[in-house]
Amino acid sequence: MSEILKYQVRVFYEDTDFSGYVYHANYLKYCERARSDYLRVIGVDQNAMFAEGQAFVVRKMECEFLRPAKFEDVLDVETRLIEMSGARFELAQMVRRGADEIFSAKVTVAIIGPSGRPQRIPSDLAQKFSR
Amino acid sequence: MSEILKYQVRVFYEDTDFSGYVYHANYLKYCERARSDYLRVIGVDQNAMFAEGQAFVVRKMECEFLRPAKFEDVLDVETRLIEMSGARFELAQMVRRGADEIFSAKVTVAIIGPSGRPQRIPSDLAQKFSR
Amino acid sequence: MSEILKYQVRVFYEDTDFSGYVYHANYLKYCERARSDYLRVIGVDQNAMFAEGQAFVVRKMECEFLRPAKFEDVLDVETRLIEMSGARFELAQMVRRGADEIFSAKVTVAIIGPSGRPQRIPSDLAQKFSR
Amino acid sequence: MSEILKYQVRVFYEDTDFSGYVYHANYLKYCERARSDYLRVIGVDQNAMFAEGQAFVVRKMECEFLRPAKFEDVLDVETRLIEMSGARFELAQMVRRGADEIFSAKVTVAIIGPSGRPQRIPSDLAQKFSR
Repeated sequence: MSEILKYQVRVFYEDTDFSGYVYHANYLKYCERARSDYLRVIGVDQNAMFAEGQAFVVRKMECEFLRPAKFEDVLDVETRLIEMSGARFELAQMVRRGADEIFSAKVTVAIIGPSGRPQRIPSDLAQKFSR
Repeated sequence: MSEILKYQVRVFYEDTDFSGYVYHANYLKYCERARSDYLRVIGVDQNAMFAEGQAFVVRKMECEFLRPAKFEDVLDVETRLIEMSGARFELAQMVRRGADEIFSAKVTVAIIGPSGRPQRIPSDLAQKFSR
Repeated sequence: MSEILKYQVRVFYEDTDFSGYVYHANYLKYCERARSDYLRVIGVDQNAMFAEGQAFVVRKMECEFLRPAKFEDVLDVETRLIEMSGARFELAQMVRRGADEIFSAKVTVAIIGPSGRPQRIPSDLAQKFSR
Repeated sequence: MSEILKYQVRVFYEDTDFSGYVYHANYLKYCERARSDYLRVIGVDQNAMFAEGQAFVVRKMECEFLRPAKFEDVLDVETRLIEMSGARFELAQMVRRGADEIFSAKVTVAIIGPSGRPQRIPSDLAQKFSR
């Protein structure tokens, strides 16, 4: 479960603000793209889940903004599953520019069912994450 | 039909980019907020429409970026219905900072039904726009 | 220092995603708007600070996503200064829809100077926050 | 000058709205990413230009929203230079999903100098576009 998946993003105009650097909330977008990519890689079809009334929802994020990134930077978003238990996933995500640490987050994700209530992680899904 | 509705926005960090000014695509967000406000003011409930499978969709926008706006600017978005015919609305929108013209757009909006196809403007809706 | 400042936002199309609810990263935008409003209310001119090479930067955010918000919801963002010490501010922010708690965050903000390095909170600024 | 450059994007949560489809203003972001990519490919360094007080600014966009795109769609953004004259570039951009046309835009871009005023296209820049 400690495998790290990398996802690359480039910083565009839309990501920056007038300070000259990436707007802080946009690191959460980068991390969400990386998590969606992670799911695709392990074979989870979010559209199919959604059609059955299931969805992943973020419950908690502990974010640290470590260094600024700027226009045209190429960033790596690393995603690592830390724990999977009951109805929750714990992920560690890190945005790097080469060796520099830019942003880190500890993310808690739950699965909700058709009722909108959290539900236990289905076993076929758990297997995809465990591989 | 030539009444002008005004909606005010303030420029926040999120709206700007590293050039120091408002990111061009964000004027479309301001215009969409002003159109949603316009609908609310004339008594159109978009959530209720959506629950019945109806939605407004933007078909065309002719945009002119006239002057830059910057952080903390207070902008007025003016919305005016130009024409309503068959299945389409034509709107003129202008973003101003005091007397300065910042952004203008001519917007064509259609209504789509449950099938995803455009449909004629329902008469009760047309009446709300005509008042 | 325990006074709570309220800032109101309305949920527009741009804020939601295909799940039907507000996209998680957008609560950080709401909180940033509320902090910018807070600064304006206590008399801090961020454009003037920026012209002197100073800026507020977010260092940490501990975020909890408590309930979903949806299109057309009217939300209150409450901001409260918890602590101000050396070069850091600690703020508590809560997004509510009426009595419902939607999103909460503990935010650590620093001031950086022309070198890009953190600097002690200037005394005139500290006074504005203390009033 | 009629060469077409392709840039690929994937639709993430952040790009969609509660209608279930891509939020209309986000096609302008996709087009801007594709233009930035285009500039990089022909050897234009926007950071270096910006350091000398020069920047590209969008003056006009004529946008047509042809078909909706949805979560996880993979889209191609095609960019083609139509004309370059005096201080202006005319570009045609098309967002496709396979054979389907999703969004098209005719974009007018100018170069502004340190004064914030439009300036003639520098000859070295014109050469990069002409190759």
